[in-house]
Amino acid sequence: MASHVPEGSQRGYIIPIGGAENKRRKPLILQKFAELCGGKNARLAIIPTASKLKETGQNYIDIFRDIGVDYCVSLPIEERSDSECVEYLQELNEASGIFVTGGNQLRLSTIMGGTPVAQAIRRRNAVGVHFAGTSAGAAIIPEHMIAGGKAGPTPREGGVIFAPGLGLTNKIVVDQHFRQRDRLGRLLSAVAFNPFATGIGIDENTAAFIDPEGMLEVVGSGAITVVDPSELFHSSMESENRGKAINLTNLRLHLLTSGAKYDINSRQVFN
Amino acid sequence: MASHVPEGSQRGYIIPIGGAENKRRKPLILQKFAELCGGKNARLAIIPTASKLKETGQNYIDIFRDIGVDYCVSLPIEERSDSECVEYLQELNEASGIFVTGGNQLRLSTIMGGTPVAQAIRRRNAVGVHFAGTSAGAAIIPEHMIAGGKAGPTPREGGVIFAPGLGLTNKIVVDQHFRQRDRLGRLLSAVAFNPFATGIGIDENTAAFIDPEGMLEVVGSGAITVVDPSELFHSSMESENRGKAINLTNLRLHLLTSGAKYDINSRQVFN
Repeated sequence: MASHVPEGSQRGYIIPIGGAENKRRKPLILQKFAELCGGKNARLAIIPTASKLKETGQNYIDIFRDIGVDYCVSLPIEERSDSECVEYLQELNEASGIFVTGGNQLRLSTIMGGTPVAQAIRRRNAVGVHFAGTSAGAAIIPEHMIAGGKAGPTPREGGVIFAPGLGLTNKIVVDQHFRQRDRLGRLLSAVAFNPFATGIGIDENTAAFIDPEGMLEVVGSGAITVVDPSELFHSSMESENRGKAINLTNLRLHLLTSGAKYDINSRQVFN
Repeated sequence: MASHVPEGSQRGYIIPIGGAENKRRKPLILQKFAELCGGKNARLAIIPTASKLKETGQNYIDIFRDIGVDYCVSLPIEERSDSECVEYLQELNEASGIFVTGGNQLRLSTIMGGTPVAQAIRRRNAVGVHFAGTSAGAAIIPEHMIAGGKAGPTPREGGVIFAPGLGLTNKIVVDQHFRQRDRLGRLLSAVAFNPFATGIGIDENTAAFIDPEGMLEVVGSGAITVVDPSELFHSSMESENRGKAINLTNLRLHLLTSGAKYDINSRQVFN
């Protein structure tokens, strides 16, 4: 559950990235994140836990240094016991931005869930530290995380696997690699279970910069697909047989590209 | 997400019941709930939405009248459009207790999720109205709801299906008909996904009376199984193949019977 914002503080940005963001040539998304965190004077903490590749953390350190951030550190959290490491908690407490890499989002939830590191991330975001995550790092952001599911455009019984995420927000559920991996069906399945959150499907090299007031701005070369179920008339998720298509009526759909804005609280589009 | 408790208010009880509670002979659990809500002077609102049987609401009205509550009303919410009914919202606003019957918890989430009725329940509970739910009505209580899964004692990949619930609390996940339907494996699977919440498995004719401070007391003839993952060493949920058993180490387990207490915040047992 998102940490309470203390009196006088302002929440940090929440920035889910759809994966495969440009890293060397025109790294627009990572640049914008770095600027938000203080540019040259930013202090970035990178969490490579979703990835099993040893070099993931160092790769992002190199990328952010190329972009011009002097202070970048990677926290190699590989086991639950690492999620209590005092040194890592200290880095999180001093960071102006936290970046979570791609990999498998279930590594993030099983290794960090319920630990001091997960608490520290929520608390720091609540007092203004910006959080960006790409691919698995984007999936983990909401309270309800899409952990898996079926490809294809049709929502189905069993079309999505939910797990508890990091809980920086409960207003949205996030899917990524959205067009590239044909995930409309699983985002619709997610919304069909309990139509309270807005579904946000993010293409590769595309990010949702969500400001402290909940205004989302699209950055990058692809689109963000928004599925708003607030006027949903009917979902048949409860009555469908195994794997069958789901009846879902009266959804509102937006396809937003670079520069478009969407208020995740009022659910209004601003072009 | 649980509504914020306003200054000067106190949250109401949250009472998940494991299903098949005694109704005519020694209805201890329902009696205790009715007393908590004001006994003879209680105003009970019954939500029979999980059930497809037309008589479910009236049955509980009769039972609570037998117990001695004068004012009981059933809110026949059968479609999403019913979840905006002004009359039903008025009943919820005047109720001292809300009771949700058994059936299919996905009917509750698909029909009420994101609607004014769901908001009203959270807000009323945050200002002191007591909430009890049996079977499906118990499953819907937490933010992360167990919507289905596999029977048997072993946690498995795919052993549990999560969906967003009502969100009266995020500290626990609830399973019911616990011993009767052999659900230890699915509760363990739930905890294995993201070990931040405590797993609560409730037998039939057994209830967890959770007071405003988070102290849980066992009432009824069966047991409550508590799975506390706060010291979990490792979960292999992220790496197991389809349907395979999961490695889960260093869980703490409690089996609690009538009168035993458990603090869901400090995770301590009081016998």
